[in-house]
Amino acid sequence: MTKIIELTVKTGERTQMIDITGDILKLVQNSGISHGLCHVYCPHTTAGITINENADPTVITDMLNTLNKLIPVDKSYLHREGNSDAHIKAALIGASETLFIQNGTLRLGTWQGIYFCEFDGPRNRRVWIKLST
Amino acid sequence: MTKIIELTVKTGERTQMIDITGDILKLVQNSGISHGLCHVYCPHTTAGITINENADPTVITDMLNTLNKLIPVDKSYLHREGNSDAHIKAALIGASETLFIQNGTLRLGTWQGIYFCEFDGPRNRRVWIKLST
Amino acid sequence: MTKIIELTVKTGERTQMIDITGDILKLVQNSGISHGLCHVYCPHTTAGITINENADPTVITDMLNTLNKLIPVDKSYLHREGNSDAHIKAALIGASETLFIQNGTLRLGTWQGIYFCEFDGPRNRRVWIKLST
Repeated sequence: MTKIIELTVKTGERTQMIDITGDILKLVQNSGISHGLCHVYCPHTTAGITINENADPTVITDMLNTLNKLIPVDKSYLHREGNSDAHIKAALIGASETLFIQNGTLRLGTWQGIYFCEFDGPRNRRVWIKLST
Repeated sequence: MTKIIELTVKTGERTQMIDITGDILKLVQNSGISHGLCHVYCPHTTAGITINENADPTVITDMLNTLNKLIPVDKSYLHREGNSDAHIKAALIGASETLFIQNGTLRLGTWQGIYFCEFDGPRNRRVWIKLST
Repeated sequence: MTKIIELTVKTGERTQMIDITGDILKLVQNSGISHGLCHVYCPHTTAGITINENADPTVITDMLNTLNKLIPVDKSYLHREGNSDAHIKAALIGASETLFIQNGTLRLGTWQGIYFCEFDGPRNRRVWIKLST
C-alpha cells in the first residue's frame, strides 16, 4: 500500500464540483500498480468526494442547485459560523470513494468522473489518496 | 486481490431497488477467501449501491417514494436528457459499498441486504466486484 | 488484515450522533499497524456512520434537525413498523467509512470526528471494524 499522497484543490465559489479524475489517473498510472484499489479521501467537513457524469456540465449545475434548494443557507442554524448547510451536504455526499485499478489504470464507468465537492468555498482544499494492491 | 468480477442486473422500472445479496454471497463463498473485504462498485452515473433492510419490501417502496418526492423528475433541469434527478439520487446513495468477509462468507447485519438502486431505468446494468484479503 | 473487531454503542434518543473517534483511535494505536486502512461498518439498517465536525456540537444538532425536516416521521409510510424515515436516513448517510492509518494512528482532517448516527433509538448498537495493511 502506498503512503498517503496529497493533492491540492483551489475552489472558486461557495458550492462547486471540480473534476479531479485526471490528477488521480496520473497518480495511478505512475504508481506501477497493475491491479488494486484507489482510496480517495476528503479531510474537510464542509466538502466531499463523489463520482458522477463528466460529459455534460449541466448535470453538475443541476446537482448543486438541487442540493442548495433542499439544504439552503439558513439563518436559523444554531452553529454560529453559519455554514451548517455545508456540513450537512458534506455528510450526504460522503467523504471518500473507493475505486478499482485494472491493467495499470483506473477502471471507471464510461461516463464517470471523480469530483471534489466544495460546499463552503472558495478555499484551498486537500484530497488524500492511497493506492493498495 | 481478485480481478474485477462483473455481474449484470436487468432493471424493469424507472426507479427500483434490486436485492443482489445472493449473487455477491455466491461469489464470496466460491472465492476461497476466509477473511477479507468485498468491494461492490456501480459503474453508472444514474444508479447506485446501498445496504438496507431485506425483510419487509415496503421499506424499499417507502425509500423510493421519499427520494422521488425530495428529488422529483422536473422539467426545469438544465441537463437536456431530462434525468438530472437520477444523477442526484445516485450521488446521495453512493456508487459503492465495502463489506466484510468472515469465515468464508459475507458478514452482514441481521436485516441487511445489498441493493442495486436504479434511478433511470429500465436498463441493462452492471455491478463490479473485487475481493481482497 | 485484522479479524472483525466489535464495538458497542448505547444510544439514548431517537436520532442522535455519537462521537466514536476515541474508541477507534485506541484500536488503531493498539494494533501495531503503521500504515494502512481502517474500515468502519454499521451492521444496522436504521443507523449509519459518518465523518463530520467534532469541534462545535451545534453542527450535529443542525444536521439532525435538517434530516428530520427533510425526512420526517410520517404516518403515511407503508412499512408497518413506522420507522421508514430511519431506513431512508441510514441509506443517505451510508453504512461505512474507510479511513487512513499513518505512523500508527488515524490520519483525520483537523476538524474531523467519526460519528455513529442513530436514527431509530434508543437502542444498544454495534460497530464493526477491520484494519488492513
